[in-house]
Amino acid sequence: MSQVEFKGYAITDANLWTQFNLIEYQPKTFDDNDVELRIAYCGVCGSDVHTITQGWGQIPTPLVVGHEITGQVTRVGANVKEFKVGDRVGVGAQIGSCYKCRACKEDQENYCPSMIDTYNAHYPDGVFAQGGYSTAIRANQQFVFAIPENLPLRYAASMLCAGLTVFSPLKRHGCGPGKKVGIVGIGGLGHYALLFAKAMGAEVYAFTHSNRKMDDIKKMGADHIIVTGNNPDFAKPLQMQLDLIVCALDVGKGMPLKDYLSMLWVHGKFVMVGLPDEPLPEMKAFDFLTGAFLGGSHIGNKKEALEMLQLAADKGIKPWIEEMPMSKAGEAVQRVKNGDVRYRFVLKQDISPIDID
Amino acid sequence: MSQVEFKGYAITDANLWTQFNLIEYQPKTFDDNDVELRIAYCGVCGSDVHTITQGWGQIPTPLVVGHEITGQVTRVGANVKEFKVGDRVGVGAQIGSCYKCRACKEDQENYCPSMIDTYNAHYPDGVFAQGGYSTAIRANQQFVFAIPENLPLRYAASMLCAGLTVFSPLKRHGCGPGKKVGIVGIGGLGHYALLFAKAMGAEVYAFTHSNRKMDDIKKMGADHIIVTGNNPDFAKPLQMQLDLIVCALDVGKGMPLKDYLSMLWVHGKFVMVGLPDEPLPEMKAFDFLTGAFLGGSHIGNKKEALEMLQLAADKGIKPWIEEMPMSKAGEAVQRVKNGDVRYRFVLKQDISPIDID
Repeated sequence: MSQVEFKGYAITDANLWTQFNLIEYQPKTFDDNDVELRIAYCGVCGSDVHTITQGWGQIPTPLVVGHEITGQVTRVGANVKEFKVGDRVGVGAQIGSCYKCRACKEDQENYCPSMIDTYNAHYPDGVFAQGGYSTAIRANQQFVFAIPENLPLRYAASMLCAGLTVFSPLKRHGCGPGKKVGIVGIGGLGHYALLFAKAMGAEVYAFTHSNRKMDDIKKMGADHIIVTGNNPDFAKPLQMQLDLIVCALDVGKGMPLKDYLSMLWVHGKFVMVGLPDEPLPEMKAFDFLTGAFLGGSHIGNKKEALEMLQLAADKGIKPWIEEMPMSKAGEAVQRVKNGDVRYRFVLKQDISPIDID
Repeated sequence: MSQVEFKGYAITDANLWTQFNLIEYQPKTFDDNDVELRIAYCGVCGSDVHTITQGWGQIPTPLVVGHEITGQVTRVGANVKEFKVGDRVGVGAQIGSCYKCRACKEDQENYCPSMIDTYNAHYPDGVFAQGGYSTAIRANQQFVFAIPENLPLRYAASMLCAGLTVFSPLKRHGCGPGKKVGIVGIGGLGHYALLFAKAMGAEVYAFTHSNRKMDDIKKMGADHIIVTGNNPDFAKPLQMQLDLIVCALDVGKGMPLKDYLSMLWVHGKFVMVGLPDEPLPEMKAFDFLTGAFLGGSHIGNKKEALEMLQLAADKGIKPWIEEMPMSKAGEAVQRVKNGDVRYRFVLKQDISPIDID
């Protein structure tokens, strides 16, 4: 049996979303395909905030959120060959799938209709899944990712949702040398999109609402920066120029979607990775006459996660993060809600400190 | 000089869209890259009706519409090697482009920002372009298509807009053996999409609002027919099953777009080839979480036109058309407006009859 304790910072009153209380909880039944890990770091994702503020629906309590997890393996199931106790690993926003549908069989497990979210979901054994603002977690080996030796766990943590969510569409839809790639909204996801698109060899166009982040965006390596606020003609010089746009905005109706579509080359794609609560702007079939495509994406598969982590290790990609102790989760989610984060919070284990990096 | 006369059935009063009067008009200046043809047949396109009813904006008069043209070459410019006098040829919905932009250079001339429509447009020499409900037309050789010997001109005519508009997205987005392709709306465009998708080897799912066309759709070769009207659950059995959907509906808000997107396999495409005046239904980013893409298309390029015509010739594809004399254009457009057509009208030359088929 494991010597690991399962404790986490939980929302215990659904109406008090900045108040986290330490609780103890039951983990899923450990099975032959599971990996158990002690958690060293957990990133703070916009999804955590959407969830605890109940923007995506009512929540049960107590609820531990967090799905950008890195740590060290403490136990492996009998069928697990890829990992051993002591390995540095991570877990992202998905912790299970059906393993037998077409999606699961074709490396599209992130589109499995029976996917299990890392928290606020139920494992097949009926146990409620608690997330990573906690000491430990158990996950099916398919959803555990080895972290390359020279990639610090504090950096890898927020790559596992924010990073993968943008890396997957960049990879799948052709980002690379000779391609012009637009990134809209330079926040947690957008800053990763910018770093990765650049590392993948594309010419990168960053679209940002105001001048505020200009210096940061330059340092992140954007080849071109386009300020969209107060400039209704921002898209005009780029008509049919871009091959791909990844949009990380958490904005619906107010977004100049037609302008973005007009910048795409024939059959170019506008991929939304943000999930605003409000609807998109009104569109007509006419707005797609240049052959543009509007679509979405959902995290990424394991192959992409491993490729992304290796790219980050090889190219020395450093995400722009602010680190704080896990007990300050309340402050972190409040600041994410306020948009006061550059560009991602990573919570460091302080319930059961672990000496690994 | 040419012995051809340029006469056509024109709308002469913008408020009387079913009343066609025979007029004589000036053709474009003949240049070294032009081909001139006597017109034998011209299809009646939904675009003709949108144009003359001014649903797409005000029109000048007199206006001759029609852009599904077949006939016989009467004159070729000095630079024209592909055609000679007497050849059987066709002209579709585009009659010119800039010939030098990226789109033109990369076989995407149908997306050239300076494209010239076949009618209700101006040629570079300033002459107003009149369409195919007429005796003859001049077009740049890039936009003239040879008709295979064993494909009758009466069949080829409506392929040049309706056919090409659906063939291009089918071809570009992967229709073929082993693929499941949905066709929504079995009218002029939709019936071609069904015939071509089947000829290209796909498993074809036809979506139709009522039982009315059931027998026809079976005869056209659909593998599956789904009646959508009064069946809010029509999409449920097909969740994430289809690789591609081509939508020929001329309906906006009333269309169950979310249901259609839900039937697409990961990164499958929903391509709109209809151009309703009204906006699309309200959408959220959440509706694209399965990785689906929504997009458009614009006619097709010359390579696709020739491939389509050859496919039709090789497979003996017969469009379902109703033929009438060109002088009955008024009756034809009225019936198209009423949806009373199975599945395309083709007008036969009667101003200056031509003995070719």
